[in-house]
Amino acid sequence: KVLWTVLVTMLGYSSSLPVGEDALCTAEELAKYRIIFTGKWSQTAFPKQYPLYRPPAQWSSLLGVTHSSDYSMWKKNEYASNGVRDFAEKGEAWALMKEIEEAGEKIQSVHGIFSAPAISSGTGQTSTELEVHPRHPLVSFVVRIVPSPDWFVGIDSLNLCEGDHWMDEVSVDLFPYDAGTDSGFTFSSPNFATIPQDTVTEITCSSPSHPANSFYYPKLKILPPIAQVTMVKLKKSQLGLSAPFINLPAKSNEVIDSVS
Amino acid sequence: KVLWTVLVTMLGYSSSLPVGEDALCTAEELAKYRIIFTGKWSQTAFPKQYPLYRPPAQWSSLLGVTHSSDYSMWKKNEYASNGVRDFAEKGEAWALMKEIEEAGEKIQSVHGIFSAPAISSGTGQTSTELEVHPRHPLVSFVVRIVPSPDWFVGIDSLNLCEGDHWMDEVSVDLFPYDAGTDSGFTFSSPNFATIPQDTVTEITCSSPSHPANSFYYPKLKILPPIAQVTMVKLKKSQLGLSAPFINLPAKSNEVIDSVS
Repeated sequence: KVLWTVLVTMLGYSSSLPVGEDALCTAEELAKYRIIFTGKWSQTAFPKQYPLYRPPAQWSSLLGVTHSSDYSMWKKNEYASNGVRDFAEKGEAWALMKEIEEAGEKIQSVHGIFSAPAISSGTGQTSTELEVHPRHPLVSFVVRIVPSPDWFVGIDSLNLCEGDHWMDEVSVDLFPYDAGTDSGFTFSSPNFATIPQDTVTEITCSSPSHPANSFYYPKLKILPPIAQVTMVKLKKSQLGLSAPFINLPAKSNEVIDSVS
Repeated sequence: KVLWTVLVTMLGYSSSLPVGEDALCTAEELAKYRIIFTGKWSQTAFPKQYPLYRPPAQWSSLLGVTHSSDYSMWKKNEYASNGVRDFAEKGEAWALMKEIEEAGEKIQSVHGIFSAPAISSGTGQTSTELEVHPRHPLVSFVVRIVPSPDWFVGIDSLNLCEGDHWMDEVSVDLFPYDAGTDSGFTFSSPNFATIPQDTVTEITCSSPSHPANSFYYPKLKILPPIAQVTMVKLKKSQLGLSAPFINLPAKSNEVIDSVS
């Protein structure tokens, strides 16, 4: 059971790099990053039950936070907060924003919140900036999969600090998660609350192991990434007046594999 | 004709305060504001054709910009840009973000971009922060009305600077606009491009003057505001580490009439 857990953590948890609770960040100052989210949810890659109408496949707003290890937005195999549940089920951000605000006020565990506009198709892009601080070097975010019961993609506590410096660029493939709060099997399942609430679980091509599951592809070993996120450190010269959002790629349909 | 234009500007243009092109801002430094957008699109206030299903009444992400008078995101009685068209028709933000980025690079007319998460019902709230600069004291934003052909609410070039200081708080009622790019009459009209493109026009209870229009209420003199935006200047003590998003109201269903 313990070994199984370790394996899941190492192999299955591809949406986040491991974070040592004690890893100390000794970088001297704030760093700013451009974060670019790329949806890769195409009908070619995910033909099964691909949503074409009312609504077609799309992505919600991106809601994220920079924080210390004292805060957690969401975590695999743990219960989703009410804010994450509202966001994953309905794309409603308010409760999650309040939770983040309270964590910032009460235990000083949050540096800032960021959001990026929704994407109106399965394969577009969105982008914004974020700021990290040596005492708040972790990045977490969520984006709801639309339509879906309570499915989302995201990052949990990605550390942008490496010892005494900030990473120049990080790209992570993203895979779908189930928030554990709605028992729907397919993209367009009607709402049906999971009682008691389940933990956050990764959805794979074989789990949930039921042919009705929208991501059940028994012939695949692993799902293709449904999205990707890239964070690029902004140079000092790119900061400040009149240049706060350099580096937007040219076209929303142009899928980025690497920004480097 | 000239008088008519002046009257329209003074009376009808309630989503924006008048901006003198030559109004000089001599405030000494940057200012940060919390911006709170409140949807007031309830079935009680807008019973006609109120969208209940697939999708129910809701609001897109909010996309905004702080800028000088050399940039305009959108303007009543002028043609919408391709970016505003994509956003108003589909909630797709990428082209508009690129337009803003280019205005920032080429003519230094933009200070920053900001966005806030979508609202999954007609009457919720969303919020983010924005920063203005003495040379870029104007705020513009758009939020798409969902579902709709190409309807949105927003602010065009609201000046937060008054001479040598920044305004403490501004609240503005918002009314629906038609981007002039899709000829649908009702919330759920199928797409039907307006060729040639029309200008951006305010939708009132009597215009377009057709009983099929979703906002046509011949017994009303004016529509109730469909949304409201409040910008509150953040005090120095509310800025910086661990306090970047103070002032979120308690509940998303609690409609704010005044934050003061």
